[in-house]
Amino acid sequence: MSALVDYIEANREQFLAGLVELLTIPSVSADPRHTADVRACAEWLAGQIRALGLDNVQILPTGGHPAVYGEWLEAPGQPTVLVYGHYDVQPPDPLDEWDTPPFQPAIRDGRVFARGAADDKGQVFMHLKAVEAHLRTSGRLPINLKFIFEGEEEIGSVHLDEFMRRYRDLLRADMVVVSDTSWFANDVPSLTYGLRGLAYFQVDLQGPAHDVHSGQYGGAVGNPAWALVQMLASLKDEQDHVTIPGFYDAVRPISPQERNAWQELPFDEPAYRAMLGVPALHGEQGYSVLERLWARPTLEINGIWGGFTGEGSKTIIPARASAKLSCRLVPDQDPEQIADLVEEHLRRICPPWVTMTLTRLSTGKPSVTSLDHPGVQAALRALERSFGKRARFIRGGGSIPIVASFQEVLGLPAVLMGMGNADERAHAPNENFVLDNFFGGIKAAAFLWEELAQPRTE
Amino acid sequence: MSALVDYIEANREQFLAGLVELLTIPSVSADPRHTADVRACAEWLAGQIRALGLDNVQILPTGGHPAVYGEWLEAPGQPTVLVYGHYDVQPPDPLDEWDTPPFQPAIRDGRVFARGAADDKGQVFMHLKAVEAHLRTSGRLPINLKFIFEGEEEIGSVHLDEFMRRYRDLLRADMVVVSDTSWFANDVPSLTYGLRGLAYFQVDLQGPAHDVHSGQYGGAVGNPAWALVQMLASLKDEQDHVTIPGFYDAVRPISPQERNAWQELPFDEPAYRAMLGVPALHGEQGYSVLERLWARPTLEINGIWGGFTGEGSKTIIPARASAKLSCRLVPDQDPEQIADLVEEHLRRICPPWVTMTLTRLSTGKPSVTSLDHPGVQAALRALERSFGKRARFIRGGGSIPIVASFQEVLGLPAVLMGMGNADERAHAPNENFVLDNFFGGIKAAAFLWEELAQPRTE
Repeated sequence: MSALVDYIEANREQFLAGLVELLTIPSVSADPRHTADVRACAEWLAGQIRALGLDNVQILPTGGHPAVYGEWLEAPGQPTVLVYGHYDVQPPDPLDEWDTPPFQPAIRDGRVFARGAADDKGQVFMHLKAVEAHLRTSGRLPINLKFIFEGEEEIGSVHLDEFMRRYRDLLRADMVVVSDTSWFANDVPSLTYGLRGLAYFQVDLQGPAHDVHSGQYGGAVGNPAWALVQMLASLKDEQDHVTIPGFYDAVRPISPQERNAWQELPFDEPAYRAMLGVPALHGEQGYSVLERLWARPTLEINGIWGGFTGEGSKTIIPARASAKLSCRLVPDQDPEQIADLVEEHLRRICPPWVTMTLTRLSTGKPSVTSLDHPGVQAALRALERSFGKRARFIRGGGSIPIVASFQEVLGLPAVLMGMGNADERAHAPNENFVLDNFFGGIKAAAFLWEELAQPRTE
Repeated sequence: MSALVDYIEANREQFLAGLVELLTIPSVSADPRHTADVRACAEWLAGQIRALGLDNVQILPTGGHPAVYGEWLEAPGQPTVLVYGHYDVQPPDPLDEWDTPPFQPAIRDGRVFARGAADDKGQVFMHLKAVEAHLRTSGRLPINLKFIFEGEEEIGSVHLDEFMRRYRDLLRADMVVVSDTSWFANDVPSLTYGLRGLAYFQVDLQGPAHDVHSGQYGGAVGNPAWALVQMLASLKDEQDHVTIPGFYDAVRPISPQERNAWQELPFDEPAYRAMLGVPALHGEQGYSVLERLWARPTLEINGIWGGFTGEGSKTIIPARASAKLSCRLVPDQDPEQIADLVEEHLRRICPPWVTMTLTRLSTGKPSVTSLDHPGVQAALRALERSFGKRARFIRGGGSIPIVASFQEVLGLPAVLMGMGNADERAHAPNENFVLDNFFGGIKAAAFLWEELAQPRTE
């Protein structure tokens, strides 16, 4: 046991240098200009996994960005664990709000700052180094392990379901371990047992064929920016309830047990407000903050644009106005069904004097895992051994659509042992990963394989 | 008389070459990066006016972009006319919608295409050439004339009131002639007797201090894009009436005479829709299209932006959302008072979970001129002589705030003899000026000075 911990302690600098190298690759899956970078990142990872000594290392094609696979299957009689992570990252904009450039990792205040630091490259690399620690100290792993790292998580894992069906045999396992979630607070190791799903749209409204003078035509021709704000505003009522018919029909009510457990979590609302920099929180009436985040669906405007957005005053009626809209979904909402409801409703309320184009950009299923699963209990012990304190069960507001897919396509239960710090700023400028979580996460992952191993029958 | 017309006919190529040269100068007053170009344009114009042989030619400082002045005052006993125009232009974006670059004038289909072709460089240059025709053929003008060309019309003529007060003596005249309006239709020479005013704002809403993950925070933190669309949507009701209290209080009712006269104008709604490329027109209920354009105030969204506007799906709640908003105003609305009403109302409806910054970008007064004025009657005759058909009295939906300022500060009635074609696309991509209007406008301006001259007492 001690050799494992000693190895991890002795190699902190090497681990960090490797992570920094990984974080310099701008593997932005949403941006076609970065396609080659995404590919380069897959190749870098495959090289690392090969160097660890894993077998059958491959870069597997999908309909889009490739996935990286590797395995170590020399523990007969022991469970097989599929470790999932993603090596693609969110776009880094707005660039001018980063203190240091997003793809030039900077170490300060005990954190590494870079796009993908916590989401999810830091957590992927943590698993590589945990495997390295076992193999370099004992020459073996306590269990059988398969790595699968995808390059399309940030664009909705669009090809993963098909990929899972095609590689069903290769991916066969007893459970999937996912490290792509965050702690409840920076000193509260957490296991996530529920995630929200996603349905993401773009709405484009076309008014006049070109921008027109707001004096010469104002009053006579409909303004697509007005149509857009009026359509969008009508999608929520004054209680911040979504008004789309049927939107809440499949929402599973919050159980009294969960409501009580969540009330006991150390949620510090003033600190939360301060971190966000807002004078007041705001959300759906009738629910606590954690209930809104974990068990209630949302409808957000992720982006909106149209007309003149430069300096000064340009007096036009814009030809077009657009918005990116997305719903976070909770069990038992079905993303495709919700996408249908949203589309139908938008088509119903679109005024006749503009032309609408609706594009579905991505969908992902919500999920919940049982707390009694042996993998979940093993992860609980591994976290306590590494961090020296009780881990808590939480849900996540975000989406890891693949968690539901692993369940549905491969029949695998998911253990969500994430190490992201609560203030990691995923998807935002100055994304960061607390180094204590990174190094502690390497230990916890190494311990998890021990905790999952069955006692040998001599 | 014939020498004047002969000169104009003989010099068409020279006139057009000069206009093309003027149109290559990107004198975008709204954009600080073009400050030097605006200055260069003023100097180019001053050089042209000096070359004509006018006296006292000067580039006069304002608090912003300079104005250009020149005079010819050798007709004692005759009226003095101040000719106003502007040499600044609107920003050219969106650049990719221009068939040819905005500052590389292209001649096709009997038109010149360039930013500023009709608004207002083509019409300014027309007046220079009309004066040239008189001075080169008879060595004199029939009346006294002063040119004043400003460089801030497209940003609300912010310094012009102060400028008029400072140069009250220099600008003293019997009337002001403004050529910055368009015809009712391409074959209907028109005199504009009413214009709308303007009040232009930028609204910036700040939510969280930085963009946040729409999964991790969605439901708990207010989205400034939601606040913006909800605030904006509430500013109009279902009849497209503006809901801001007091907004319509000072609106002068449409007289039965005007209503009848406007109904007789050859308004071709299907052609108007086709030109705009819209399936249906849209505006305030209870008014005809011309009534909405000429005698009713508007509230438009000129631009809106916030969050992720790139390709793909970035799952954020934006930190900020902004809009450019403007009202077109009609007699007797006061722009400052309306600006106060809009500001007060926006502050009242802004939710407590975002922080609003409101910026007034420009204001301009609406105006109406009497149809009996001798200048208006002289312009009517000049138009008929040049174009061979009856000119019509119309109003304009746009704003030339300085028309009201000339009235208020200098006591000058305004004659709005504009030559813009109805489909000039001012402020939009592919702005253009019909060459028949340009050459006919030179003749009409030359004739106007004859029509305004008093018979000599021998």
